This record gives sequence, structure tokens and C-alpha cells, in this order.
Amino acid sequence: MTQNYPSAEQAHNFPLIIKHLLDRSRMTANEEEIVFSDKARMTYKQFFKRIAKLANVLKALNLEKGDVISVMDWDTPRFLESYFAVPMSQYVLQTVNIRLSPEKILYTINHAKPKVLLLNSEFAPMVKDYQFDNSSIQHIIWLDDDGVKCEDVMPERQSLVVGEYETLLDKASDDFYFEDFDENAIAVTFYTSGTTGNPKGVFYSHRQLVLHTMAVASTLGTLPQKQGVVLGDVYMPMTPMFHAMAWGFPYMVTMLGLKQVYPGRYSPDKLIHLMETEKVTLTHCVPTIVQMILDQAQKEGKKFNGLKMLTGGTRLTEGLATNALSSGIEIFTGYGMSETGPLISVTEFKSNEADMDLKDDVKRRCLSGKPVIMVENQLWDDTGKLLANDGAEVGELVVRAPWLTQSYAKNSDAGDELWEGGYMHTQDIASIRADGWLQISDRLKDVIKTGGEWISSLEIETILSLHPAVADVAVVGIPDEKWSERPLAVMVFRSGFEDTNPKDIIALTEQAAEKGLIPKYGIPEYYKIVEALPKTSVGKHDKKVMREIYANHSAN
Amino acid sequence: MTQNYPSAEQAHNFPLIIKHLLDRSRMTANEEEIVFSDKARMTYKQFFKRIAKLANVLKALNLEKGDVISVMDWDTPRFLESYFAVPMSQYVLQTVNIRLSPEKILYTINHAKPKVLLLNSEFAPMVKDYQFDNSSIQHIIWLDDDGVKCEDVMPERQSLVVGEYETLLDKASDDFYFEDFDENAIAVTFYTSGTTGNPKGVFYSHRQLVLHTMAVASTLGTLPQKQGVVLGDVYMPMTPMFHAMAWGFPYMVTMLGLKQVYPGRYSPDKLIHLMETEKVTLTHCVPTIVQMILDQAQKEGKKFNGLKMLTGGTRLTEGLATNALSSGIEIFTGYGMSETGPLISVTEFKSNEADMDLKDDVKRRCLSGKPVIMVENQLWDDTGKLLANDGAEVGELVVRAPWLTQSYAKNSDAGDELWEGGYMHTQDIASIRADGWLQISDRLKDVIKTGGEWISSLEIETILSLHPAVADVAVVGIPDEKWSERPLAVMVFRSGFEDTNPKDIIALTEQAAEKGLIPKYGIPEYYKIVEALPKTSVGKHDKKVMREIYANHSAN
Repeated sequence: MTQNYPSAEQAHNFPLIIKHLLDRSRMTANEEEIVFSDKARMTYKQFFKRIAKLANVLKALNLEKGDVISVMDWDTPRFLESYFAVPMSQYVLQTVNIRLSPEKILYTINHAKPKVLLLNSEFAPMVKDYQFDNSSIQHIIWLDDDGVKCEDVMPERQSLVVGEYETLLDKASDDFYFEDFDENAIAVTFYTSGTTGNPKGVFYSHRQLVLHTMAVASTLGTLPQKQGVVLGDVYMPMTPMFHAMAWGFPYMVTMLGLKQVYPGRYSPDKLIHLMETEKVTLTHCVPTIVQMILDQAQKEGKKFNGLKMLTGGTRLTEGLATNALSSGIEIFTGYGMSETGPLISVTEFKSNEADMDLKDDVKRRCLSGKPVIMVENQLWDDTGKLLANDGAEVGELVVRAPWLTQSYAKNSDAGDELWEGGYMHTQDIASIRADGWLQISDRLKDVIKTGGEWISSLEIETILSLHPAVADVAVVGIPDEKWSERPLAVMVFRSGFEDTNPKDIIALTEQAAEKGLIPKYGIPEYYKIVEALPKTSVGKHDKKVMREIYANHSAN
Repeated sequence: MTQNYPSAEQAHNFPLIIKHLLDRSRMTANEEEIVFSDKARMTYKQFFKRIAKLANVLKALNLEKGDVISVMDWDTPRFLESYFAVPMSQYVLQTVNIRLSPEKILYTINHAKPKVLLLNSEFAPMVKDYQFDNSSIQHIIWLDDDGVKCEDVMPERQSLVVGEYETLLDKASDDFYFEDFDENAIAVTFYTSGTTGNPKGVFYSHRQLVLHTMAVASTLGTLPQKQGVVLGDVYMPMTPMFHAMAWGFPYMVTMLGLKQVYPGRYSPDKLIHLMETEKVTLTHCVPTIVQMILDQAQKEGKKFNGLKMLTGGTRLTEGLATNALSSGIEIFTGYGMSETGPLISVTEFKSNEADMDLKDDVKRRCLSGKPVIMVENQLWDDTGKLLANDGAEVGELVVRAPWLTQSYAKNSDAGDELWEGGYMHTQDIASIRADGWLQISDRLKDVIKTGGEWISSLEIETILSLHPAVADVAVVGIPDEKWSERPLAVMVFRSGFEDTNPKDIIALTEQAAEKGLIPKYGIPEYYKIVEALPKTSVGKHDKKVMREIYANHSAN
């Protein structure tokens, strides 16, 4: 049908590629700053030159289009440069999750098969025993902030090292023409640290990253200024850049030409110091980091002056949100995962909303938000039937958006499962209100199936955590012949509360059931007091391990 | 290179089509309102149903994909419904510019060849003599707010009328499944009212409209709340919906789920009344309408409470901007044209900018803005050489962006000219500062070429307009054997100033030349006092006509 409207021969068919995220800032932000902790600062003008220099360094390695280049680094401007130079040169960037165990890190590198590794000297010990001779890695670019040389750590790998990053850039030309190419070319890959089996690689095309960037800028940009992104913001990440592309923020703020601050390795005092000295207004992190920052600020007797903070990854509790707000942090929630770009949902605020008391405001900030533009959320039951968005029906959240990973790398079975039925399965159990508010209640695999009903473990955990004796708690389903599963509460006591009778804690759920807040079969049938809960590499409760350990608890 | 990352078989390959602009509002905005002047109001929920109903009405006409459907209407929710239902049904929407002369209107309809015409009864007289029997139009859908029937106006066309819009919708099912399809399908077409020759048809694909919507939302959304778009805004257009898709705002605000107010036919008292009663916070219009609104508000003794207003189309003068600001309007400038989507540049404000005195603030609001994200602006001289963005060099503004018309409909010669050299030629003369600020100084064809130099007619006009006697002024180049062209000032006197000596006015340019503000050869060599300046259909000075009329003025 488009034959009535042919394009002019020389009309520019604009591809959605990462290079074009720089279009606006190239024209408007040349004098804006990008800061590396207390170590260095540069202007965008210099940044653009360094992207060209890095591209020339990579070009000299005679790689092929589509070759993978892996980066192991803290949050640095170097990492930001690789976010751009690598995919803009038509290579695929692997951001290596250095929080995984050394074995899993090596697994992800073996799986992605990079030809080049940008390696921070601090991480060299982790990979020094890697079988480089049999590996895909042909070149190492040495990243270092501490004067450590490759020969100091792994002299046997010295032959692979092309050079030290800054030295290479110094010598490289800053003249590089980045061509246009197919927007569907893959730009980045990284691995999810799932609790089951080996990490799985997600991947994103240029088009997907550009659309995620534009959609997130539209969604966060149109929030009121108190919470939303605005020209003039100063950005600092507190979610690592190896983790889901730091939630897409570096691309967004570079597109907008905002001042950026990269803290290197995180430490609470350094983060707070940089917030102060660089006047940071915009950040994002997981709740664990929020707590860390709040503790540090309290220790230093400091408050935050309206710092805008998006949290996600795990549930933001109302207690933590209240503390953050009272410390001057505008905290709110984003929802997503490695597979979803990642951001697909974010707390909504409106300029014309009625005054809200603190309790309701906190509650709203702890929900899982409303959809980012161009995102379609649905709830399905376990047969794939569409459920109602009425705030009551509970099912698996399935999603469509223009930027979801289209499969897993070299794992088409898992990819097919991910996309079964044409929607992406989040494996999160949720309800959606008629006005679009999303509430995640559990991971699908952590739901406790008892007597044909589903119980949200998170709900029960929340109730148990209200007891002063409880420092940490997880509720898992353990096999039961009659009911299929029954809930077990695994609890850690706060010091000084060791004498507490666990039954007094369980009683809280009985009261909740009497009030109709949870179903009666949600009252934990069993409990177990432990020193610490098993955790995954990213610090989440490892319920898979708990289910294994306590599988026979009922028989004990 | 993407073969390493194949998509899962059932992975959803999300097309950028207009239907998906509704994804967020379908989930979040069901209870938000869309208002039609004082006549009617509905919720988004009803709006979604009406889109489905309109699609069913059109489906019953057995059209083919790609068929054109033309709309002649004021700014109504009906028009908004056609913005969605027509392209979502894979037809092409022609928004007919009813401000053109009847002959040119018919030209555009003859050229676009619609099979269906949605016709407001008020415009029926304009098209009643159209040769319907020989035309492409097979069906007319009658739009009416005044109880006028087709048989009252053009009984001879009654046989073409399918029915009255509301009656048809009442009878139609609200169940319609909009399929996904190729995002490059053409969605809309409309005609530029160029001063030379016949109107030319620009056209946009679904992908282009979606990307324009996202880019504009990102750009306006990340402005500070005082000027930018925010959730909670109430929108009313004051640029007609037939004119460059009302600058893309209806798509943007629908995507965001904002309350919308459609005023029908514009009249200043009605617009101000609706602003008040519906609490409008966001609008856009040409400077002529700004003046009209200010005059009306003054008459009624009213002020505006921070109404955000984007202006464009013609230059915003500092005088008008000052008046608007002092009346409580947050006025600023967007730049673009029918060929550019239209928005490619907009005034920048930052949350952290230093305090600015009124004069500087006004000046900045009257510049042509900074680029919308994903827009690349360049300046070329007349040989296609790239000029510097230094605020000094002056050349033609050429552009790349993901949403520029790729040619003109059925006019490939003009399309080739538009895209000569791979950038879109705006035919506007501009300078760009090192920090990205764009300043349009003239239309390429209105530039006066004298002694090998270019003189901006707008600059000279601005100076002459400072004289109290001048009500309206245009400066055009007239042929000169020695200098190629020399400037002629055509002026209209304000009543009561008829006795002014024109030389006293010209003297202002002499003073400006002495101060070095304009070149000496910019002083008008000739002048002419007239009753009124020739204008185009959209109210701009028709300099082409003036150049023709006064071609021999120097010889007179």
C-alpha cells in the first residue's frame, strides 16, 4: 500500500541506532560534565572524542562485525564510553556481572565468546585462572585506577594485553566516522543471575535500546519535577552498569545531555560524598543500597535535599520508604527485570493529584507502578487465560513492549518458554488495578500451591516481619501429600530476641487470617529458626535452596 | 551478525504503529475525560469504544488497505477518533486544510483521491460544487453539530452519504480487533500551503508518527514542570487538527492519558471560557492566536495562571512574548514545518539555570529553540558546504530525524529537491550557536541577495516595526541591475499615523546600520505605503506576490 508514497532517492532512512542517542547532546551539551569520582572530570566534548578514540583502538584489532567485546569494570566513564563505542562500531557489548561467583563469571564469558576483554585490574584475580589459551579472548585492554599492571597480577597473560586503556586512548585518533547500519543489529548482551541453573544471556538490538531510552525518558520526564527527570538534573548510578545496563539511565541521561557522576566502586561514604560535592539530584538503586545510604547518612548526621531515587530489583518495604522520605529522598519504584529492558513500570505521580497523607503516599510508592509508555501488561492464569485488571484477580504478569529480549542467547528452549503464547512471561505473580497500578505479589516459582489455591509467600513474610523479633524471614512451600504444598516459615531472630517463642510470631498470621487479610491456609504450618537465610549472588533470598533443604521438614 | 541471537518463534516483534500509542492509556486512563467544548464529554473508556465503532463503520464500506479517508472538521473528539481509527484500520488519513481557498481544497482532495470523506456540514458549501461524479469519493460521512442535514445543503449528493457520524457510531459494534502490521505503512497525509504553486502533500508512516510522539514527549516532558508536559496536564489545541496533526500533541497527550478539551471552531471568548472551566494547562498556537487570546483576556479583565503555550509557525516577537508572560502565560517557541513532523526544535529551560532577567528570558523564548531528541541540525551554504555552529555563520538549515516526510506525494521532483544531498532542506536561513540554540533569520526564498551578500528580511522588518506608526511591514528584494537585488519596505500605517514621513521610519534602519546591528546595504532603498499586505491562506505575508507586484518599483 505504500507504493503511492515512494521515498525520495536521497531521503535519509533514519535507523534507530545508539549513535543517534548522541544527536542532541552533540549539539547542546558540549560543555556539560562527566565526572569520575574524585579522580577525573571531562566535558561531553571530550567524551565524544574519547568514544571516537576507543572506536579507533578497537578498529585496530581487526575484529568482525558482531564480535563480542566484554567489559569487567566498576561504574566509570570508561564503561560509559564502551556503552557507546562498542555497539556504534557494530560489535556486541557484554557487560560482565562481576558479582557472580568466579565460576559463573567464567561461564558467562565462555558462553558469550568475546574476542576482547576490557578488564579492570581489580578483577584480574577472578579471571586469572581462566583458560585463556582455549578461549575466545584474543585481546585484553587493561583498565586500572591503582597503578596495578598486568604483569603484577597475571604475567602469563601479558601477551594478550593490547595496552592500558588511557594510554591507548591517548595515542588514538579522535577522528572516527560512525556509519549508519541496520537497527536490528544486536548491541548488548548480559546474563541474568537466575537462582536455577546457569546464567542465561539476554540481548538487545540497537532499536530496542533506543526505544527503551525514549520510552523511559517520556515516562520519567512527564512525572512532576519533584520526582521526574528534568533538564538540569545531575545523575549518578547506584545500580551497577553491568546490571541491566544500569536500568537504561546512562543512555537516557547522555541523550538528554545531563551532567553525570560515576562513582567507581560503591562505598556508602563515597556515594554520599559525591552526592554532596557534585550536587547529584537523580539516582537509582536496589532497596539494600537505599538502606546502606540511609545508615551512612544517619551516621554522618546528614539529610538529602529531595534526591530523586528510583528503586527496584526487590520489593521496597513501607518502612524503608518512610525512612527514605523522612531523610529527604524522593523514593519511588520501578519494576522490570533483565529480560524487559529493564524498565516497564514506574510509580505514577500527577501534578494535579489531591493531597495524600503520608501513609497512602508511601503505599503508592511501594506498589510496582504503572506501565511505561508502549508497554502492555496482562495477567494470565496458569492455562494462559486472560484475567481481569480489577485489583483482585491474581495471575502471572505477561508483557509486550518494543524492547523485550527476543530470546536467550544460544538457549532457544528457554527462549521459547519465555515467549510462550506470544507474550513475555515475567514469572511474577501480580494483580493490576482498573487504573493500571501493578502489584507484584510473588515470584511464580515461589508461590505456595496449597489445596488448589495460590498463596503469596511475600504477603505472609510481610506479616511475620512485623514482629520485633524477626530480622529476616522467608516463607516457602514444602511438599505435602494431601495439600500439595504447605507453608514453612524460615526465620532469623534479631540479637537479644533469641528466647522468643516462634508460635507468638506465627500468631500474627493467625490474626491476619481472622481479619480476612490472608486466607486461613496461608498460616505457616511449620517454622524453622536459623542463623541466616541462604542468599543468591545478588543478595536475594535463595528459595530454591530453602525448598531443597527443608523438603522433608514436615517429616522431621 | 544477528544470527547468534535468533528470536524465539513466538516472540512478539513489536511494530511501531499508532495502536500502541494507546497501550498505556488503555490501562491507566479509562476514567480520564475528553471534552468537546460545551457540547459533550466522554471518558477514555468511551473513546476507546468509539474508535472501535468508527473502525466498524469504515469496515462496512469495503475499502482496501491504503485507501485514503479525508476529514474536513473543526477540532473535535471526532477528529481525534479519526486520528486513531483510520490509520489503525490500515487506511490513510488525509486531514483537509479548510483554510485554503475552495479551489485549493478541491485540488488537495483531487490529488489525495480519498474514497471516503468525513464532512462537517459547515464545510459542505465549499465542496458542494466538487465534481463528485468524476471523483474518487464513494462515500460521505456527515458530521454535524447544528442540526443541518445533507439534503439541506447539497441534496444532489445525498446518495453518497452513508449516514450521520453519531447515528452510525450508535449502531456500530464496539468490538474491533486492530491487527499488528508493517510499521512503515503510511498513516496520514496532508498538504502544505506553500506560497508557490499548488499545495504539496507530505506523508508520514506509523513508525514516524510514533517516534515523533515519543521524541516530543521526551523533550517536552523533561523540561521543568513550569513549561514542560507533566502527568496531570489538561490539554486543548489552538492549532487546528488539520494543520500538521496539531503539531503531534493529540497523539502525545492520548499516549500519556491526559485530559483533553476540543474547542470545535475557534473563537477567542470560547477558548478562554474553556480554559477556565476545564482548567486547561497546556496548549499551542501561532502568534496571531496568542495576540487574539491576549486581546480577549484584556477585554474580559482576565489573567492566565501559568498556562503553558508552545508557539510556532511564524516568529514570536519579543513584544508579544513579554505581553504573554505578563498575562500569566508561559510562552515559548517550537520550530518545524509540515515536512518535519512537525516539531524538531523547542525552547530549552533547565531546573538548575541561573536567574535570568526578563529581557534575557524573553529573548531566549523567541529564539527557535534547541533540537528535539534524535534530531540532527546542520547549516549548509548554497553549495552544500557544512558551516560552523558558532552563532555567526548563516546558512540553510538542513535536518535529519526519524520522522521527516520522505518525499512529496506524487511529486517526486519536489521530493528530490527536498532531500538533495541526503539531508532535508528546510529552506530556512539560520544560525546555530555552539550550545545548540537555533535562530531562524529568514526563509531562503525571502532572503535579499544584494552585492553578493544575504540580507535577512526579518531582521529589517523587526527594526522597522519598532516605529509607532508601523502596523505591519514586509521587506522584499526587488531586481536591481547592479546589486542583483535591493530591499523594498512595504508598510501599513496604524490609524492616526497616516501623516508620518516614511523616511523617519527608514531612519531607524540607518541608525541600526551605524551601530553595526545590520549591514549598511540592508537599509531599504525603496518604500511603499499600502492599506494592507498581501497574505497567504494561513495569514503569512505573501512575499511572492509582493515581489511580483513591486518588481518594477525601482523604475517607477
